[in-house]
Amino acid sequence: MELLKEAIRKRGSVLSSGVLKVDQFLNHQVDTNLMSAIGEEFARLFADEHVTKVVTIESSGIAPSFMCAHSLQVPLIFARKKKSVTMDKENVYSSRVYSFTKKEYSEVTVSKDWLCPGDRVLIIDDFLANGQAATGLTQIVEEAGATVAGIGIVIEKSFQDGRALLEGKGYRIESLARISSLEGNKVQFVEESAHFAYNKS
Amino acid sequence: MELLKEAIRKRGSVLSSGVLKVDQFLNHQVDTNLMSAIGEEFARLFADEHVTKVVTIESSGIAPSFMCAHSLQVPLIFARKKKSVTMDKENVYSSRVYSFTKKEYSEVTVSKDWLCPGDRVLIIDDFLANGQAATGLTQIVEEAGATVAGIGIVIEKSFQDGRALLEGKGYRIESLARISSLEGNKVQFVEESAHFAYNKS
Repeated sequence: MELLKEAIRKRGSVLSSGVLKVDQFLNHQVDTNLMSAIGEEFARLFADEHVTKVVTIESSGIAPSFMCAHSLQVPLIFARKKKSVTMDKENVYSSRVYSFTKKEYSEVTVSKDWLCPGDRVLIIDDFLANGQAATGLTQIVEEAGATVAGIGIVIEKSFQDGRALLEGKGYRIESLARISSLEGNKVQFVEESAHFAYNKS
Repeated sequence: MELLKEAIRKRGSVLSSGVLKVDQFLNHQVDTNLMSAIGEEFARLFADEHVTKVVTIESSGIAPSFMCAHSLQVPLIFARKKKSVTMDKENVYSSRVYSFTKKEYSEVTVSKDWLCPGDRVLIIDDFLANGQAATGLTQIVEEAGATVAGIGIVIEKSFQDGRALLEGKGYRIESLARISSLEGNKVQFVEESAHFAYNKS
Protein backbone atom coordinates (compact mmCIF):
# COMPACT_ATOMS: atom_id res chain seq x y z
CA MET A 1 0.00 0.00 0.00
CA GLU A 2 1.88 3.00 -1.34
CA LEU A 3 0.31 5.61 0.99
CA LEU A 4 1.41 3.60 4.03
CA LYS A 5 4.91 2.98 2.71
CA GLU A 6 5.28 6.70 2.08
CA ALA A 7 4.17 7.42 5.67
CA ILE A 8 6.69 4.89 7.01
CA ARG A 9 9.48 6.38 4.90
CA LYS A 10 8.73 10.03 5.67
CA ARG A 11 7.18 9.96 9.13
CA GLY A 12 8.54 6.80 10.75
CA SER A 13 11.93 6.47 12.36
CA VAL A 14 14.22 3.50 12.79
CA LEU A 15 15.30 3.11 16.43
CA SER A 16 17.42 0.00 15.88
CA SER A 17 17.76 -2.83 13.39
CA GLY A 18 14.65 -4.39 14.95
CA VAL A 19 12.50 -1.44 16.00
CA LEU A 20 10.56 0.97 13.79
CA LYS A 21 8.85 3.89 15.50
CA VAL A 22 5.57 4.93 13.90
CA ASP A 23 4.04 6.90 16.74
CA GLN A 24 3.52 9.92 14.50
CA PHE A 25 0.65 8.26 12.64
CA LEU A 26 -0.16 4.80 14.02
CA ASN A 27 0.37 3.92 17.64
CA HIS A 28 0.35 7.12 19.67
CA GLN A 29 -0.62 10.01 17.44
CA VAL A 30 -3.09 8.65 14.89
CA ASP A 31 -3.57 9.88 11.33
CA THR A 32 -7.26 9.06 10.91
CA ASN A 33 -7.17 9.60 7.14
CA LEU A 34 -4.40 7.03 6.75
CA MET A 35 -6.06 4.67 9.25
CA SER A 36 -9.34 4.92 7.32
CA ALA A 37 -7.56 4.10 4.06
CA ILE A 38 -5.86 1.15 5.78
CA GLY A 39 -9.15 -0.11 7.21
CA GLU A 40 -10.85 0.14 3.84
CA GLU A 41 -7.97 -1.67 2.16
CA PHE A 42 -8.33 -4.57 4.61
CA ALA A 43 -12.08 -4.61 3.95
CA ARG A 44 -11.40 -4.76 0.20
CA LEU A 45 -8.78 -7.51 0.50
CA PHE A 46 -11.01 -9.73 2.65
CA ALA A 47 -14.31 -8.80 0.97
CA ASP A 48 -14.94 -12.37 -0.21
CA GLU A 49 -14.13 -14.07 3.10
CA HIS A 50 -17.62 -13.69 4.60
CA VAL A 51 -16.19 -12.01 7.69
CA THR A 52 -18.62 -11.78 10.62
CA LYS A 53 -16.30 -10.19 13.23
CA VAL A 54 -13.05 -8.25 13.23
CA VAL A 55 -10.79 -9.00 16.20
CA THR A 56 -7.77 -6.91 17.13
CA ILE A 57 -5.67 -6.34 20.23
CA GLU A 58 -5.56 -3.22 22.38
CA SER A 59 -4.45 -0.50 21.94
CA SER A 60 -2.64 0.04 18.66
CA GLY A 61 -4.82 -2.34 16.67
CA ILE A 62 -8.00 -0.38 17.29
CA ALA A 63 -7.44 2.60 14.98
CA PRO A 64 -6.42 0.63 11.85
CA SER A 65 -9.20 -1.93 12.31
CA PHE A 66 -12.01 0.51 13.12
CA MET A 67 -12.79 1.47 9.53
CA CYS A 68 -12.32 -2.11 8.35
CA ALA A 69 -15.09 -3.34 10.65
CA HIS A 70 -17.15 -0.26 9.80
CA SER A 71 -16.75 -0.84 6.09
CA LEU A 72 -17.61 -4.55 6.39
CA GLN A 73 -20.48 -3.61 8.76
CA VAL A 74 -19.49 -6.18 11.35
CA PRO A 75 -18.61 -5.73 15.05
CA LEU A 76 -15.05 -4.95 16.08
CA ILE A 77 -13.72 -6.70 19.19
CA PHE A 78 -10.52 -5.59 20.82
CA ALA A 79 -8.85 -8.27 22.90
CA ARG A 80 -7.71 -7.08 26.31
CA LYS A 81 -4.11 -7.47 27.40
CA LYS A 82 -5.22 -7.38 31.00
CA LYS A 83 -8.59 -8.52 32.24
CA SER A 84 -11.04 -5.67 32.62
CA VAL A 85 -12.79 -5.15 35.96
CA THR A 86 -16.17 -5.60 34.32
CA MET A 87 -15.06 -8.89 32.73
CA ASP A 88 -16.13 -12.08 34.44
CA LYS A 89 -12.88 -14.05 34.93
CA GLU A 90 -14.61 -17.37 34.17
CA ASN A 91 -16.22 -16.08 31.02
CA VAL A 92 -13.17 -15.38 28.85
CA TYR A 93 -11.08 -17.07 26.21
CA SER A 94 -7.46 -16.33 26.94
CA SER A 95 -4.01 -16.87 25.55
CA ARG A 96 -0.57 -16.16 26.98
CA VAL A 97 1.45 -14.03 24.57
CA TYR A 98 5.17 -13.32 24.75
CA SER A 99 6.42 -9.97 23.51
CA PHE A 100 10.02 -10.12 22.30
CA THR A 101 10.15 -6.31 22.25
CA LYS A 102 8.92 -5.87 25.81
CA LYS A 103 10.46 -9.15 27.00
CA GLU A 104 7.35 -10.02 28.98
CA TYR A 105 4.31 -12.25 28.87
CA SER A 106 0.83 -10.85 28.84
CA GLU A 107 -2.54 -12.52 29.10
CA VAL A 108 -4.74 -11.70 26.12
CA THR A 109 -8.46 -12.19 26.71
CA VAL A 110 -11.75 -12.00 24.84
CA SER A 111 -15.11 -12.39 26.54
CA LYS A 112 -16.98 -15.56 25.60
CA ASP A 113 -20.01 -13.35 25.01
CA TRP A 114 -18.70 -11.93 21.74
CA LEU A 115 -17.27 -14.88 19.81
CA CYS A 116 -19.44 -17.78 18.70
CA PRO A 117 -19.02 -20.99 16.70
CA GLY A 118 -19.90 -20.06 13.14
CA ASP A 119 -18.14 -16.71 13.33
CA ARG A 120 -15.64 -16.01 10.57
CA VAL A 121 -13.07 -13.76 12.18
CA LEU A 122 -10.68 -11.36 10.51
CA ILE A 123 -7.71 -10.74 12.82
CA ILE A 124 -6.01 -7.37 12.47
CA ASP A 125 -2.86 -6.13 14.15
CA ASP A 126 -0.52 -3.19 13.74
CA PHE A 127 2.75 -5.18 13.58
CA LEU A 128 3.75 -8.71 12.67
CA ALA A 129 7.17 -9.69 13.97
CA ASN A 130 7.46 -13.10 15.61
CA GLY A 131 3.76 -13.74 15.23
CA GLN A 132 3.15 -14.29 18.94
CA ALA A 133 0.24 -11.85 19.29
CA ALA A 134 -1.46 -13.01 16.09
CA THR A 135 -1.01 -16.66 17.11
CA GLY A 136 -2.58 -15.87 20.48
CA LEU A 137 -5.59 -14.36 18.71
CA THR A 138 -5.95 -17.36 16.37
CA GLN A 139 -5.97 -19.64 19.44
CA ILE A 140 -8.71 -17.57 21.04
CA VAL A 141 -10.80 -17.62 17.85
CA GLU A 142 -10.43 -21.38 17.52
CA GLU A 143 -11.08 -21.99 21.22
CA ALA A 144 -14.43 -20.28 20.56
CA GLY A 145 -15.14 -22.75 17.76
CA ALA A 146 -14.98 -19.91 15.25
CA THR A 147 -12.93 -19.78 12.05
CA VAL A 148 -9.99 -17.50 11.24
CA ALA A 149 -11.04 -15.90 7.94
CA GLY A 150 -7.68 -14.19 7.56
CA ILE A 151 -5.02 -12.05 9.18
CA GLY A 152 -4.50 -8.42 8.20
CA ILE A 153 -1.26 -6.75 9.25
CA VAL A 154 -0.40 -3.08 8.88
CA ILE A 155 3.40 -3.43 9.04
CA GLU A 156 5.18 -6.75 8.66
CA LYS A 157 8.79 -7.16 9.72
CA SER A 158 9.51 -9.73 7.05
CA PHE A 159 12.99 -10.34 8.47
CA GLN A 160 11.36 -12.01 11.46
CA ASP A 161 9.56 -15.33 11.36
CA GLY A 162 5.93 -14.40 12.10
CA ARG A 163 4.68 -14.85 8.54
CA ALA A 164 6.31 -18.27 8.15
CA LEU A 165 4.80 -19.39 11.46
CA LEU A 166 1.27 -18.29 10.51
CA GLU A 167 1.42 -19.45 6.89
CA GLY A 168 2.64 -22.79 8.18
CA LYS A 169 -0.68 -23.08 9.98
CA GLY A 170 -2.56 -22.36 6.77
CA TYR A 171 -3.76 -18.82 7.45
CA ARG A 172 -4.14 -16.21 4.74
CA ILE A 173 -2.05 -13.17 5.65
CA GLU A 174 -2.25 -9.76 4.00
CA SER A 175 0.35 -7.21 5.09
CA LEU A 176 0.00 -3.67 3.79
CA ALA A 177 3.72 -2.93 4.14
CA ARG A 178 6.43 -5.59 4.28
CA ILE A 179 9.79 -4.50 5.61
CA SER A 180 12.75 -6.63 4.64
CA SER A 181 15.34 -4.71 6.64
CA LEU A 182 15.87 -1.87 9.09
CA GLU A 183 19.66 -2.15 8.94
CA GLY A 184 21.73 1.03 8.78
CA ASN A 185 18.80 3.13 10.04
CA LYS A 186 17.09 2.61 6.71
CA VAL A 187 13.71 1.10 5.91
CA GLN A 188 13.85 -1.37 3.05
CA PHE A 189 10.61 -2.86 1.76
CA VAL A 190 10.31 -6.41 0.44
CA GLU A 191 9.34 -5.31 -3.06
CA GLU A 192 12.31 -2.95 -3.26
CA SER A 193 14.84 -5.55 -2.20
CA ALA A 194 13.28 -8.05 -4.65
CA HIS A 195 13.47 -5.41 -7.36
CA PHE A 196 17.05 -4.63 -6.39
CA ALA A 197 17.99 -8.31 -6.53
CA TYR A 198 16.30 -8.59 -9.92
CA ASN A 199 18.21 -5.58 -11.24
CA LYS A 200 21.47 -7.09 -10.07
CA SER A 201 20.92 -10.50 -11.65
CA MET B 1 -27.91 11.49 22.60
CA GLU B 2 -30.92 9.23 22.16
CA LEU B 3 -29.15 6.50 20.13
CA LEU B 4 -26.56 6.08 22.88
CA LYS B 5 -29.12 6.08 25.69
CA GLU B 6 -31.07 3.40 23.85
CA ALA B 7 -27.88 1.31 23.52
CA ILE B 8 -27.17 1.72 27.25
CA ARG B 9 -30.74 0.73 28.14
CA LYS B 10 -30.98 -2.26 25.83
CA ARG B 11 -27.41 -3.51 25.52
CA GLY B 12 -25.71 -2.37 28.72
CA SER B 13 -25.94 -4.12 32.06
CA VAL B 14 -25.71 -2.80 35.59
CA LEU B 15 -23.18 -4.79 37.62
CA SER B 16 -23.60 -2.79 40.83
CA SER B 17 -24.81 0.62 41.94
CA GLY B 18 -21.51 2.05 40.68
CA VAL B 19 -20.62 -0.08 37.66
CA LEU B 20 -22.26 -0.13 34.24
CA LYS B 21 -21.05 -2.73 31.76
CA VAL B 22 -21.09 -1.58 28.15
CA ASP B 23 -18.73 -4.11 26.63
CA GLN B 24 -21.30 -5.10 24.02
CA PHE B 25 -20.82 -1.86 22.09
CA LEU B 26 -18.15 0.38 23.63
CA ASN B 27 -15.19 -1.05 25.49
CA HIS B 28 -14.62 -4.60 24.31
CA GLN B 29 -16.93 -5.33 21.41
CA VAL B 30 -17.33 -2.08 19.47
CA ASP B 31 -20.38 -1.00 17.48
CA THR B 32 -18.65 1.11 14.84
CA ASN B 33 -21.91 2.66 13.62
CA LEU B 34 -22.71 3.93 17.11
CA MET B 35 -19.09 5.00 17.69
CA SER B 36 -19.13 6.92 14.40
CA ALA B 37 -22.34 8.69 15.40
CA ILE B 38 -20.79 9.51 18.79
CA GLY B 39 -17.61 10.84 17.20
CA GLU B 40 -19.58 12.99 14.79
CA GLU B 41 -21.73 14.33 17.62
CA PHE B 42 -18.59 15.41 19.53
CA ALA B 43 -17.30 17.06 16.35
CA ARG B 44 -20.59 18.93 15.98
CA LEU B 45 -20.70 20.04 19.63
CA PHE B 46 -17.13 21.37 19.58
CA ALA B 47 -17.19 22.65 15.98
CA ASP B 48 -16.63 26.27 17.05
CA GLU B 49 -13.80 25.56 19.47
CA HIS B 50 -11.00 25.65 16.85
CA VAL B 51 -9.78 22.22 17.95
CA THR B 52 -6.31 21.31 16.63
CA LYS B 53 -5.88 17.90 18.35
CA VAL B 54 -8.11 15.29 19.95
CA VAL B 55 -6.57 13.55 22.96
CA THR B 56 -8.00 10.41 24.53
CA ILE B 57 -6.71 7.61 26.73
CA GLU B 58 -6.09 4.01 25.75
CA SER B 59 -7.90 1.75 25.08
CA SER B 60 -11.60 2.46 25.39
CA GLY B 61 -11.34 6.11 24.36
CA ILE B 62 -9.96 5.32 20.92
CA ALA B 63 -13.10 4.04 19.18
CA PRO B 64 -15.45 6.88 20.22
CA SER B 65 -12.87 9.58 19.45
CA PHE B 66 -11.66 8.19 16.12
CA MET B 67 -14.50 9.60 14.03
CA CYS B 68 -14.48 12.86 15.99
CA ALA B 69 -10.87 13.54 15.02
CA HIS B 70 -11.58 12.29 11.50
CA SER B 71 -14.57 14.56 11.14
CA LEU B 72 -12.65 17.59 12.51
CA GLN B 73 -9.67 16.57 10.32
CA VAL B 74 -7.19 16.86 13.17
CA PRO B 75 -4.80 14.26 14.62
CA LEU B 76 -5.95 11.90 17.35
CA ILE B 77 -3.52 11.17 20.16
CA PHE B 78 -4.13 8.36 22.59
CA ALA B 79 -2.36 8.78 25.90
CA ARG B 80 -0.57 5.67 27.10
CA LYS B 81 -1.33 4.19 30.50
CA LYS B 82 2.10 2.62 30.61
CA LYS B 83 5.14 3.98 28.83
CA SER B 84 5.67 2.37 25.45
CA VAL B 85 9.03 0.78 24.62
CA THR B 86 9.48 3.11 21.67
CA MET B 87 8.78 6.15 23.87
CA ASP B 88 11.76 8.08 25.16
CA LYS B 89 11.25 8.31 28.95
CA GLU B 90 12.58 11.87 29.07
CA ASN B 91 10.40 13.06 26.24
CA VAL B 92 6.93 12.62 27.77
CA TYR B 93 4.36 14.63 29.64
CA SER B 94 2.94 12.44 32.36
CA SER B 95 0.32 12.42 35.05
CA ARG B 96 -0.42 9.95 37.82
CA VAL B 97 -4.07 8.90 37.69
CA TYR B 98 -5.97 6.99 40.37
CA SER B 99 -8.73 4.64 39.28
CA PHE B 100 -11.40 4.19 41.95
CA THR B 101 -12.79 1.21 40.03
CA LYS B 102 -9.49 -0.61 39.75
CA LYS B 103 -8.15 0.79 43.04
CA GLU B 104 -4.76 1.45 41.50
CA TYR B 105 -2.60 4.27 40.19
CA SER B 106 -1.41 4.36 36.64
CA GLU B 107 1.00 6.63 34.86
CA VAL B 108 -0.61 8.34 31.87
CA THR B 109 1.84 9.67 29.30
CA VAL B 110 1.87 11.64 26.05
CA SER B 111 5.00 12.17 23.99
CA LYS B 112 6.22 15.77 23.93
CA ASP B 113 6.48 15.39 20.16
CA TRP B 114 2.73 15.56 19.60
CA LEU B 115 1.48 18.40 21.81
CA CYS B 116 2.61 21.99 21.30
CA PRO B 117 1.88 25.39 22.80
CA GLY B 118 -0.88 26.86 20.66
CA ASP B 119 -2.70 23.54 20.36
CA ARG B 120 -6.38 23.61 21.27
CA VAL B 121 -7.10 20.15 22.57
CA LEU B 122 -10.42 18.36 22.78
CA ILE B 123 -10.21 15.66 25.46
CA ILE B 124 -12.46 12.64 24.95
CA ASP B 125 -13.05 9.73 27.29
CA ASP B 126 -15.51 6.87 27.51
CA PHE B 127 -16.55 7.39 31.14
CA LEU B 128 -16.58 10.29 33.58
CA ALA B 129 -16.88 9.20 37.20
CA ASN B 130 -14.54 10.89 39.67
CA GLY B 131 -12.82 12.84 36.92
CA GLN B 132 -9.36 11.51 37.70
CA ALA B 133 -8.49 10.41 34.17
CA ALA B 134 -9.85 13.59 32.56
CA THR B 135 -8.01 15.73 35.13
CA GLY B 136 -4.80 13.85 34.34
CA LEU B 137 -5.26 14.63 30.65
CA THR B 138 -5.96 18.34 31.32
CA GLN B 139 -2.72 18.49 33.33
CA ILE B 140 -0.79 16.95 30.44
CA VAL B 141 -2.33 19.38 27.94
CA GLU B 142 -1.50 22.36 30.15
CA GLU B 143 2.00 21.10 30.92
CA ALA B 144 2.52 21.24 27.14
CA GLY B 145 1.45 24.89 27.13
CA ALA B 146 -1.61 23.95 25.10
CA THR B 147 -5.24 24.85 25.84
CA VAL B 148 -8.09 22.53 26.78
CA ALA B 149 -10.78 23.37 24.22
CA GLY B 150 -13.30 21.12 25.92
CA ILE B 151 -14.01 17.70 27.36
CA GLY B 152 -16.27 15.22 25.60
CA ILE B 153 -17.57 12.27 27.61
CA VAL B 154 -19.51 9.32 26.25
CA ILE B 155 -21.12 8.23 29.54
CA GLU B 156 -21.17 10.40 32.63
CA LYS B 157 -21.94 8.95 36.04
CA SER B 158 -23.58 12.12 37.27
CA PHE B 159 -23.92 10.67 40.77
CA GLN B 160 -20.15 10.93 41.14
CA ASP B 161 -18.23 14.18 41.42
CA GLY B 162 -16.19 14.28 38.20
CA ARG B 163 -18.29 16.94 36.48
CA ALA B 164 -18.24 19.26 39.51
CA LEU B 165 -14.46 18.88 39.76
CA LEU B 166 -13.88 19.72 36.09
CA GLU B 167 -16.48 22.48 35.86
CA GLY B 168 -14.92 24.01 38.96
CA LYS B 169 -11.75 24.39 36.90
CA GLY B 170 -13.67 26.16 34.16
CA TYR B 171 -13.72 23.45 31.51
CA ARG B 172 -16.59 22.99 29.10
CA ILE B 173 -17.91 19.43 29.41
CA GLU B 174 -20.29 17.72 27.01
CA SER B 175 -21.55 14.29 28.04
CA LEU B 176 -23.62 12.34 25.53
CA ALA B 177 -25.39 10.32 28.24
CA ARG B 178 -25.70 11.40 31.86
CA ILE B 179 -26.63 8.71 34.35
CA SER B 180 -28.14 9.89 37.61
CA SER B 181 -28.44 6.47 39.21
CA LEU B 182 -27.67 2.78 38.77
CA GLU B 183 -29.54 1.80 41.95
CA GLY B 184 -31.76 -1.29 41.89
CA ASN B 185 -30.03 -2.61 38.75
CA LYS B 186 -31.71 0.15 36.76
CA VAL B 187 -30.20 2.88 34.62
CA GLN B 188 -31.73 6.28 35.30
CA PHE B 189 -30.69 9.20 33.13
CA VAL B 190 -30.40 12.77 34.41
CA GLU B 191 -33.14 14.09 32.14
CA GLU B 192 -35.54 11.36 33.27
CA SER B 193 -35.00 12.00 36.95
CA ALA B 194 -35.37 15.77 36.38
CA HIS B 195 -38.57 15.08 34.46
CA PHE B 196 -39.77 12.78 37.22
CA ALA B 197 -39.05 15.41 39.87
CA TYR B 198 -40.88 17.98 37.77
CA ASN B 199 -43.90 15.70 37.43
CA LYS B 200 -43.99 15.17 41.16
CA SER B 201 -43.82 18.85 42.10
